[in-house]
Parts: sequence; C-alpha cells; structure tokens
Amino acid sequence: MRAGAVVVAAGAGRRMQCAENKVFLRIGGTPVLLHSLRVFVAHPAVAHIVVVARAGEEERVRTLAQDLLPAKPLAVVTGGAERQDSVYAGLRALEGCDVVLVHDAARPFVRPQHVDRLLAAVEETGAACLGVPVKDTVKRVDADGTIAATPPRSSLWLAQTPQAFWRTLLLEAHEAARADGVAATDDAALVERLGHPVRMVMGDYDNLKITTPEDVVVAEALLRWREGDDENRTRF
Amino acid sequence: MRAGAVVVAAGAGRRMQCAENKVFLRIGGTPVLLHSLRVFVAHPAVAHIVVVARAGEEERVRTLAQDLLPAKPLAVVTGGAERQDSVYAGLRALEGCDVVLVHDAARPFVRPQHVDRLLAAVEETGAACLGVPVKDTVKRVDADGTIAATPPRSSLWLAQTPQAFWRTLLLEAHEAARADGVAATDDAALVERLGHPVRMVMGDYDNLKITTPEDVVVAEALLRWREGDDENRTRF
Repeated sequence: MRAGAVVVAAGAGRRMQCAENKVFLRIGGTPVLLHSLRVFVAHPAVAHIVVVARAGEEERVRTLAQDLLPAKPLAVVTGGAERQDSVYAGLRALEGCDVVLVHDAARPFVRPQHVDRLLAAVEETGAACLGVPVKDTVKRVDADGTIAATPPRSSLWLAQTPQAFWRTLLLEAHEAARADGVAATDDAALVERLGHPVRMVMGDYDNLKITTPEDVVVAEALLRWREGDDENRTRF
Repeated sequence: MRAGAVVVAAGAGRRMQCAENKVFLRIGGTPVLLHSLRVFVAHPAVAHIVVVARAGEEERVRTLAQDLLPAKPLAVVTGGAERQDSVYAGLRALEGCDVVLVHDAARPFVRPQHVDRLLAAVEETGAACLGVPVKDTVKRVDADGTIAATPPRSSLWLAQTPQAFWRTLLLEAHEAARADGVAATDDAALVERLGHPVRMVMGDYDNLKITTPEDVVVAEALLRWREGDDENRTRF
C-alpha cells in the first residue's frame, strides 16, 4: 500500500478576523502549516505529499515547506473556490498512490498514530474518517430557532481530518459530486453518498482546527502542555 | 419576573484524571466554581442562587461561596447520583422564583449577556437553551464503527449552559422524566419531551465545559486572552 497526503492550505478563513491565511500563523514559533505537514513528512507509509495553496500563495508555501527538508516528493498546487475544489485539485496531482490521506493544514496537532489507525482501517474498508465522540449535547434547530430534536448523543461523533481513502474511490466520489452539483463539508460525506461504508477512527480532542483568533491562543497553550514545559502540567 | 439560579457543582468528573472535583481547580488563581457563580451573583435579575454540591463537599462549597460576599441569598444543597438528580434537588430548593437558570459549575466563562438573552427568550417561550452552531462536521455512527449518516451541519448546534425555564415547567419536566425512568443529557431535552418548544439562544465558543485535564490548560489561556494581558492578543 502506497499512501500520499493531500494537505489543504487554501481555506478562505472567513471566520478568522485577520487578513493573513491562518496556516501561516505561528504556534510556538512555527507556522501552523509546518506543524500540520510534519507528521506526513516523517511517516514511513507516506510516499508523496501535495500541498494545496491559495492562488498567489504557492511560492510562500513552497519556501516554507522546504524548511522541512523533506526526503520525499512534495508538490504545491493551486486550490479552488471551495474546499471541495481544492481537495479535488490535490487529488488529481497525487499520482502513483493507492491511498490518499486528506488533511486540513489548519489542524496542526495531527499525530503519527492517527495516520497509523487510518491506514489500518482503510486497508479493511477503503474509507476511514478521524473523529471524536461529541461531549456536548447536540440539538437539531429549526430555522425559527426552536429546537426540533435532541439526537442521542452516544451515536454522534465530530469528524476531523485526516480522512483516508482508496485514491480511486475518493476520485470517483468527487467526480460524482461535481457531476451532481453536490457540496459537502467533508470528503467522507462524498464517499458515503456513493453507498460505500466509511469507518470512524478515534482521534483526539486536542486535534483542533484553527478557525477563530481564540483558537490560536488555545493552540499555543495545548502545544506548551503537550511539550510538557508548562507548569500547568505539574498541577495535577 | 423573578429568576433564580441552580448551579450544579456535583459532577462525578469521570473524564478528569484527578481525584479533585474539577469545580475546585483554579483558573487564573480563582476556583472554577467562583468564576461560574460570579455572573449570577452580579446579575440584577437573579434573586436567589442554589449551589448543588457533592455529598461531603457542602461545607467546602459554602466557604468558597462566602468569598463572593453575595448580597443575595445563596443556599447549598446536596446533589444526587446523576446530574439530573442534582438539578432536581436544586430546583426543589429554589423557592419564590418564576424562572430558573440551570448552569453547570464546570463552565466558568458564562457571561452576563448570556443570562440577558436567556431571560429575554424565556419571557417569550418559557424555555431557552444556550448553544453554538457546530463548526465540525457531525457524523452519526453505528455500533460497529461505520458512519450511518452525515446530518446537515447547518441545523446542528452544541448545547451549553445556562438553560432557562419557567420553574414550574422544568419541575414538571423533571417529575415526568423521573416517573417515566427517562434520563437525558440536558434539561432542555426533558422539556422538549413534554412537547413544549425550547428556543436556542446564541452562546460563545469559549463558554467551554471543563471535563478533561487539557481543558484546564485551555481555560487558563482563554482567561488570559479575555483579560487582555496576553501577548497573543497583540499578535493579530
């Protein structure tokens, strides 16, 4: 099994109140993008990496990625208007791989174990999605703001990335969605649409996505905690 | 309209890898419980506060709460085995109030505006729940780990506390649930069961619930950020 990674750094960042693409913000002195790429660069099963950049930011991404001195091929391609278009662009650029790991560059805390678990699941089922069980009660809310239902919490998970698929399956799912004019919030949903089973794989609660300014503050704190040099850690 | 608050500090803390009740952990030097109580002590519409403590911790809660020098009545009652039992105990102890705000003491970042919005909504509808739209894609997962469905994200919210109700309505909802042997993860769900509409009210993403050790680290960082004395703030 030869795996490749598509790392999407082309997000519009509509929820981040700053002009800068969030993947260039620094956490612990290192750009979010490099945190996110590190696991794929180091993982022995990942043979090829494609970073999808915003139009105009390709050179900046390429320069940054060179800092990792990757011992494996790393390509930078230009993203599209929506996340789904960007993933599709990355997928087409990833050749010679049976399996693709799709990851949002705005999730800097992906771990090697996540990749291990996803690749094991994909070998069995062809499609796997990282996630965590919801902690809060989820409500389905009508357009007028009234709660319509409280679905049973025990069966609900929050999807994260990476998500992993047989490359041909994800390509088929994207092409079907494009043909049908369907947009989804993640890649798993496009594969689910085809009726192909997708396995949920346990992630970590701290595998957060940087979307708002306070997320950067939270990410800094989590990074210090994970690195064990925070006095908070000894408090327990 | 005379409102009272039931603040539940009796959680079992099964997810917190430490023996100490999480409401006594300090954030910015102040116990979580006091952060959570402060808004209710200061809010002019809240006439009475009941704190529900774990059996054996009543005195400790009472001593802590005195530090707030509340100008309003504050009672401490003993909680039950499950959160729902604890809320019910608090509800019965809260007399002379038309409206009850139920709040988890493990959410230290409740704001005065949350209480304002909930009371405005409860005046219209009798039942209101604080929450935020989900950011991540939610998956419904079967017992075997296969994704069963991706419910449309746009209608999904994560429930938080406080939640506010006409006191008689919530009492009826709890008594019906007890009679029927029904357990729910929040109070709104018990009122929804009666067929009474519950209004969703916008909360804040940083109104987090302290459930795991890393949540304390995150809460410390958010507190510093909110207080504006964190260098992170000027980075944007």
